[in-house]
Formats: sequence, C-alpha cells, structure tokens
Amino acid sequence: MTKGSTLQEAFNRTSYPLGGHGKRNVAVLMEAFRSLSEETDSDIYGSGAIIEDFQAEVAQYLGKEAAVFFPSGTMAQQIALRIWSDQRGLQTVAYHPLCHLEIHEQDGLKELHRLKPILLADRTRTIRLADVEELGEDIACLLLELPQREIGGQLPPFSELEAIAAYCRSKGIKLHLDGARLFEILPYYGKTAAEVCALFDSVYVSFYKGIGGIAGAILAGEQPFTEASKIWKRRHGGDLISLYPYIIPAKHYMKERLPFMRQYYEDAVELASFFNGCHAISTKPQIPVSNMFHVHIARSKQMLEPIFVAACEATGVGLTNNINAVDEQNSYFEISVGDRYRRVPREKLEEAFRYIGQALRNAEINE
Amino acid sequence: MTKGSTLQEAFNRTSYPLGGHGKRNVAVLMEAFRSLSEETDSDIYGSGAIIEDFQAEVAQYLGKEAAVFFPSGTMAQQIALRIWSDQRGLQTVAYHPLCHLEIHEQDGLKELHRLKPILLADRTRTIRLADVEELGEDIACLLLELPQREIGGQLPPFSELEAIAAYCRSKGIKLHLDGARLFEILPYYGKTAAEVCALFDSVYVSFYKGIGGIAGAILAGEQPFTEASKIWKRRHGGDLISLYPYIIPAKHYMKERLPFMRQYYEDAVELASFFNGCHAISTKPQIPVSNMFHVHIARSKQMLEPIFVAACEATGVGLTNNINAVDEQNSYFEISVGDRYRRVPREKLEEAFRYIGQALRNAEINE
Repeated sequence: MTKGSTLQEAFNRTSYPLGGHGKRNVAVLMEAFRSLSEETDSDIYGSGAIIEDFQAEVAQYLGKEAAVFFPSGTMAQQIALRIWSDQRGLQTVAYHPLCHLEIHEQDGLKELHRLKPILLADRTRTIRLADVEELGEDIACLLLELPQREIGGQLPPFSELEAIAAYCRSKGIKLHLDGARLFEILPYYGKTAAEVCALFDSVYVSFYKGIGGIAGAILAGEQPFTEASKIWKRRHGGDLISLYPYIIPAKHYMKERLPFMRQYYEDAVELASFFNGCHAISTKPQIPVSNMFHVHIARSKQMLEPIFVAACEATGVGLTNNINAVDEQNSYFEISVGDRYRRVPREKLEEAFRYIGQALRNAEINE
Repeated sequence: MTKGSTLQEAFNRTSYPLGGHGKRNVAVLMEAFRSLSEETDSDIYGSGAIIEDFQAEVAQYLGKEAAVFFPSGTMAQQIALRIWSDQRGLQTVAYHPLCHLEIHEQDGLKELHRLKPILLADRTRTIRLADVEELGEDIACLLLELPQREIGGQLPPFSELEAIAAYCRSKGIKLHLDGARLFEILPYYGKTAAEVCALFDSVYVSFYKGIGGIAGAILAGEQPFTEASKIWKRRHGGDLISLYPYIIPAKHYMKERLPFMRQYYEDAVELASFFNGCHAISTKPQIPVSNMFHVHIARSKQMLEPIFVAACEATGVGLTNNINAVDEQNSYFEISVGDRYRRVPREKLEEAFRYIGQALRNAEINE
C-alpha cells in the first residue's frame, strides 16, 4: 500500500471531509433521476426534447445563440479550436502553458487536429493583454481559462478581459472561454454568465465540477459554429445515441447548486483564511476569487502525509485526500468548496486547524 | 406533419410492436440500476472496480487479453484502425463500401486520423477472400463487419472468414472485427464469441444493439493494443470521469439477454417467413443468419406508408416504424428481433400479415 492510498483511505473514513459536494457514487445518479418519469423518452443522436431543451436552456443562461451538449470538455474544446482554425485557415492557436489541452489530453489537439499552440504567460500568472499584443505571429484563436485552475484558480481583472476581447476582435482573433468553472467565478466578478460570455466567441462549461453532475459539457456560440461542432462531435465519436444519463444530472444539479455559488465562494475565502493562519501554510490565491484555491506548504510530501493522516484520525475532519510534491521541500493540494463545507461543525473545523498548526510546528522542532 | 412521422406515431400507439426490445426511455436506465447499491463508487477516468471488472469480464468472454470500455463504437473503431496504421507505418486500410466508418461517421477516420480506406466488395454482398487477394496495394488493416448490417445482416461462411484471417496473417495485415452485432451471430455460426474473435487481432462490440443497453462499446485485443487505445480514448475526449451510467446497463442487459440470442435468431427466421409469404415482399437474407434482416417491398414508399399506418390501426401490431425508398418503385425497412416479438400473440401476428398481404394485393388492383 502506498502512502498516497493511506491518506485517501483515512480521508474516506472521516465524518467531515472539507472539499467537494460528496462522494462520487451511484447515489449522484439516482438522486437526479428520482423525480423523473420512467416514460421519459431518450434523446436519439442529438435530437429529442431531453437534449434540445437543455441545450436551449443553457444557451440562454450563457447569452449565446445556441449550445451543444458534449460527453466531455476535452472533446468540446478541441472541436472549438479546430472550427476557428479551419475558418481562419490558420493552424496556430494560443493558450496558457497549464491549459487543460496542453497537459491533460495526451496532445489530442496536436495528434487529431494538427493545431499548433503558442504558450502565453507562465506558471505563476494568468494571460495579460501584453502577452497577446506581443505575439509574433497571427493566430486563429486565443483560449482563456477562467479561473486558471492549475495555478490555484487565479482570475485576471474583468477590465483586462475586456481589453483582451477588444484587441482580439480588432485583429480577427476568435476568443474561446474554457469555462469549466465559469459558474464559480460569477460572484467575484459580480457579473452574470451572459455578461462574461459576451466577451467570447465560443464558450465551454462543465457539469461535474462546481455543479457536481456526473460528466458532460456544453459548447455554446452562434448557430453556424454550434452546427459545425455537431459534425465534429459525430467524427469524434461523441454523438451517442443517448446522452440523457449525463444530461438529466447536469440539469438537476445545475438547478440545485447555481444558487449556492456565492456561498461556495465565500466559504472558500473563509477556509483559505484558516489555512493561512497555520504555520508554514499559504494559499494561492491568498484570498480566493472562486470556490477553489491551492494550499501550499513549505514541507515535503513525505513529511506531510503522516501528519494529514493523523489529523483525519484525530479530528474526523478530512482536510485533503492527496498531497502533491512541488519539490523536495514543498508540497500543495487543491481545495474546491462545495456542499460538504457547510456540514462541518465550526468547533470541528477549528479543532482540525489547531491540530494541523500544532503538528506542523512540532514537526519543525523535531527536525 | 410528414408521412414518415405519421407512421412513427401510428407505430408508437400499437400494442404489439414487432422489432426491438422496447422503448428507449428512462426505464431502461432505472431497471439496470434498481438492484445496485447507491454506495457503489463511480469509476474515475478509466479506473475503479466498476469499469475494470466489466472490462475483464468482456475480455474473457471474447477470449482476448484485455478490453477497454468506450462511450461509442465510432470512437473505438477509428482508434483501432489508427493504432494498426501507426504500427505498420501505412495509412491505408480496407473495408466494405457500406461500413459504418464510411457512411455514418462524417468521415472522422479521414478528417481526424488521415487514414485512406479502400472499399472492397459491393453493395450486394460481403467481402470475400478474392477481394483481399486482389488488393493492388499493401494495407495496414482489414475491417470486417459481422453481420454486414446495411445489406440486411449478411454473413460469409465461417470457412471464408478463416481463409481471410489466414491470408491476412500471412501478409502482416491486421484483421479488425466490427462486431456491433457479434452476440447476435453466434447461434448461426454455432461458435462461441471467443472462437469467432480468435480470427481477429482487435474486436469491437456494442451494448445497445442486441444487448439493448443505453450506449457504449468494448474494444478488445492484446494488452499493448488496448493500452494504446486508452491514450487515443483520452485524445478523442472519451476518457470520461464517469462511464458507469453506460457500464451498469451494459452489464445488466448482457447478463439478461445473452441467453436469448438463439431465441432472437430463431424468431427472426420465423418472422422473415411471414414477410416472405406476403405478395410483393421478400427479405434479405431470405433466411436470416442473425436476429436482423431487411424487408424489401416492390412498391413505392409513398404507396406503402398509408398501408402500414392502416395496418397498425386495424390490427394493433406495429410491423415497422419507418419505410425507406430504394427508388421510385421499391422500398425497404430493417427488422431487429428482440424481446418484443415473443409478446405478440400468434393470432395477432397472423392477423397483421393477412392484413398486409391483402392490402398489397388490393393496392395493385386499384393501380
């Protein structure tokens, strides 16, 4: 048994896990289907009320003309970039070095679509207008991820987004939003989804992150774009005869959780302050701008794992289920705040942070 | 309202639809999940007992070393051909002109993978050894579809399959099985799935055709092949965080319906004989070799639609929900026999065929 699985197991046994909405088990599906008639017809290859109504509902929410439901964001985003590339007759696109397409998709964009990404900004910050202005060559599309997940969920100022959008429009560069966590940033920006999406030519949103559905994504834009995306969806093998097993939960949990996005965000700000109050811990961003942030600890993964396992066992609070090594002296983990946080009694939370703070100080003394 | 939707509607109102297992509605999902604990953990990006156990179970059933669950056959088969193409360093593959990849996938194989298919045989028959021997050039992979769906579900003799497999092996050509309906042909061949699959280097099977699941496919072969297919599954956007909404029904209905494949086949033979007993009707194949066949009628779609609508309304038996024009004088539709056929009382069946036979003769007199 590895140490990683030990922390996962200790976390699974806690009464009060901090992050997320709940376990990813079959109950997530059953709850979403409970109030649905068994006579409800399946969608059939992209047609039928069950898919068309949901697509129309999300398109309206995003302020876009049309929307298409996809099995995954990986598929939706490669397709968006391919459509803009074909339209412009240019294989070059641009995105952040820690973009999902660059680090989590086995280079599908390059291997399947032959697109050539230019990496903008660096691993410490989000893309700025100057990065786009200083591009040495023309590109078909710029992808912005809001928030930038792999650096703790950072966001540019909204005015910077507006400036980038205006610049791209003036240059004929299409602007695509990786909005996997779009719902989660609206309270910080104080904008509607439609106000944010108005800056972008195409938008992807996910239903299993903040929304807590099972899987699936929406790609939205003007109708010629979404119609083209349906052809590519068929080519990718994503035009399944039935997508309702993902659509019904997406619709159910969107209705249930959208009203709590401000709560998750405010809870994240509070939770980050607890972490920042501990010895050797700092969060990124220091003050979260969404429901997520990264917890950085100036200690090795090897030192931290037994401490966090012991914290689970001593307090019943699960602070994290995994720890990633940054280097030999530094570690981090990600927190996404959801329904679970509100279920943790205040005194248990304070007890857990007292425990961790003390354990980190003791570990230092014993070094 | 089109005439086509009228026949669909009349069919939907019948008490005794002939083809398939039942309606594609939410009950299909609910039944499969009914006996499953809500505490059952989701699969996570291809890992976890729920997906790994099912993959192992199907691999064993197919007599292959390993298997990977895919959201769709479209994705699985393009990937199989791509892997064999890369391995051989040859972009050319071969398949039937009515292959699913050629006519139903918006040219994904060409647009995403840049493969060049050579079309073997023609629209009247299956691929023979001579077609493969007479290929003017080397190919990476030959795809055979058993049964050949678009020509009524025809099958080559098993000895011809063995000869093709031996020839391909001798030439270093990989042989891939489009076994979307593999389960349905085993009674006719009198072989196990493993005996058929032993002739092939890679095999795809579907879970929403004869099995009647919701969606999803398995791609099976030796482990280096299936491991490579997982990388391409990620690239295609098919490596979803949770595929259990398709896996649980696939497993449930496979267990439930595999024992009935002989029954479906024998029922298809009987049902085809009813059709062949009618004036102006002939089935292809005349004697089915699986649970499916095509019903050809030497009359126009325009003449037939009102007759089949009236048959639904007069007898309560739904013979078909759609009619396709072959040309101005000829039409056809497809039948796949499943659970529904056994629920049709014998006298209702005979009544429906008396009605259709009479109506076709009357129509001729009135012409």
